[in-house]
Amino acid sequence: MIETPYLLFLGDVPDMLAAKVAIGIRDWRPENAVGQISLPGCGADLGLTEMTLAEAQEAGAKTLVIGVANRGGMISQAWKELLVQALEMGFDIASGLHNLLRDENDLVAAAQTHGCTLHDVRIPTVAYPIANGKPRTGKRCLAVGTDCSVGKMYTAMAMDAEMQKRGMKSTFRATGQTGILITGGGVPLDAVIADFMAGSIEYLTPDNDPDHWDLIEGQGSLFHVSYSGVTMALVHGGAPDALILCHEPTRTHMRGLPDYSVPSLQELADTALPLALRANPACKIVGISVNTQHLSEEEAVAYLAKVEEDMGLPAVDPYRHSAARLVDALDAI
Amino acid sequence: MIETPYLLFLGDVPDMLAAKVAIGIRDWRPENAVGQISLPGCGADLGLTEMTLAEAQEAGAKTLVIGVANRGGMISQAWKELLVQALEMGFDIASGLHNLLRDENDLVAAAQTHGCTLHDVRIPTVAYPIANGKPRTGKRCLAVGTDCSVGKMYTAMAMDAEMQKRGMKSTFRATGQTGILITGGGVPLDAVIADFMAGSIEYLTPDNDPDHWDLIEGQGSLFHVSYSGVTMALVHGGAPDALILCHEPTRTHMRGLPDYSVPSLQELADTALPLALRANPACKIVGISVNTQHLSEEEAVAYLAKVEEDMGLPAVDPYRHSAARLVDALDAI
Repeated sequence: MIETPYLLFLGDVPDMLAAKVAIGIRDWRPENAVGQISLPGCGADLGLTEMTLAEAQEAGAKTLVIGVANRGGMISQAWKELLVQALEMGFDIASGLHNLLRDENDLVAAAQTHGCTLHDVRIPTVAYPIANGKPRTGKRCLAVGTDCSVGKMYTAMAMDAEMQKRGMKSTFRATGQTGILITGGGVPLDAVIADFMAGSIEYLTPDNDPDHWDLIEGQGSLFHVSYSGVTMALVHGGAPDALILCHEPTRTHMRGLPDYSVPSLQELADTALPLALRANPACKIVGISVNTQHLSEEEAVAYLAKVEEDMGLPAVDPYRHSAARLVDALDAI
Repeated sequence: MIETPYLLFLGDVPDMLAAKVAIGIRDWRPENAVGQISLPGCGADLGLTEMTLAEAQEAGAKTLVIGVANRGGMISQAWKELLVQALEMGFDIASGLHNLLRDENDLVAAAQTHGCTLHDVRIPTVAYPIANGKPRTGKRCLAVGTDCSVGKMYTAMAMDAEMQKRGMKSTFRATGQTGILITGGGVPLDAVIADFMAGSIEYLTPDNDPDHWDLIEGQGSLFHVSYSGVTMALVHGGAPDALILCHEPTRTHMRGLPDYSVPSLQELADTALPLALRANPACKIVGISVNTQHLSEEEAVAYLAKVEEDMGLPAVDPYRHSAARLVDALDAI
């Protein structure tokens, strides 16, 4: 639906955390990204070739993907000159931001004039049902985090890749704009109407073969007061058989909430499991995924060993090392 | 905004639980309801005078209010003949259903021809912010339930009425269609986009006088897998200082979910309070509100005494008896 390859637009975001969309595409579908383009003051760098629009077009890019998510998901006025220029050159634009490309008159006008397409992947295109809470066949695994942006999508993606490699039956189920941009389908959960959130996740993870695993992308955190309701809908709508706890050990406070501390993995376990048991009495916490990007290799290994001992569960960084032990744990239940 | 008095439309719903909207209006603004009108097979009866449209018009009714909420909130085709007839006679129509009056071509055409207004109170009319989790001045009380439709709105309404009677500063904060139809304002929470749920509740309950109480209408239940995400957003967005636990003791399973048991009040307390403490470390459970409509007076009194002893908190049926002891408990913190 979205023409590849992409040029990944980083705008003027302050840091790498805000470039989650672009990072996901770079890491999981590198063949789809010819390069990156940023504006003055941008604090993010994917390590891809920085290109002008002309260079990207020369390299074959068809779509400029807005690879960043600022707070509230706004299309910044500071981006407009470059976005209009891209449309004038014949690029399509794809975005997962809350504010829609189709609501920006200047972008719509330029797209019409130059025959380009504006893709707003965040907009639900399905009338989701209200959740019915009925058990489904097949198995489901949900990643839940101590905070937002701690590696839940990565964890599910890495487990899916490992399961595919082993010839197991699995599907990554995207619930956010990055996952949808990468895989071409999913539920843009944070844009779903409140009453239909859990139902949209039941819809996303239907009956399947008994030995098939859905790897459900997590969203938000039960401990993040801005988004906890979205996470709750994933826990009850997903009715997971297995939970993976996700954590970033150097975070000093909850993302965007300076006065809120990050809970421990034990607090997350104690909160998430009882809630998950409501929808699936067989649910188990099977492993822990730690995002160790801000630790040295030695620190990471020591931290993972400590967590594994404290929690009595396999603890890995699936990006730095491997998701194999998490998949082993899934395979054992 | 909506012209009074109303004629309350009950349609063909199977039971009284589905007539929550009409019941709320009858009980809290009886002066606004001239009567009721129902279709063949209707299992609900408000005890108001059953009227034809002509009789209601004669009695002064200006607006036909759709007083029922079926599963999913649909405008039934079986209702259409009567609704079109009402518009032809000059009634406005007001609805809080998910499916909108404005999306029904036959209703829109009849309203235009006859100069009537269609009110969809469920549609958010504000661009709510994302919750920032910052403490606000003033105090907030939230009603949380073991299930949906157990009396959370009644409890908040009755406490507000009692506080007004005592000259205390209080405001009932509607979060659903009934409350909005009754009070003329609020947040239609179940129709809010997922990411903005908690923010809409912060918006609804802003800074206020230190001795002012917001009585926030609850929605859903943390234990109801279809709607628990909505409830979670109320707990974190409302950041309540006080929780009232609401329960209906004769319910044999969760509303609409035959395979789900209703949790105990202790289970609700153990789940809701830790979640609420995240947003407001001073939060306390101050009392219990039991909907005893299906118990005799003697049974009700005995049940309340038992709950009060077991839980160590004032337990009342604010509708059957009085909300006074719940207000005493609020006043003490």
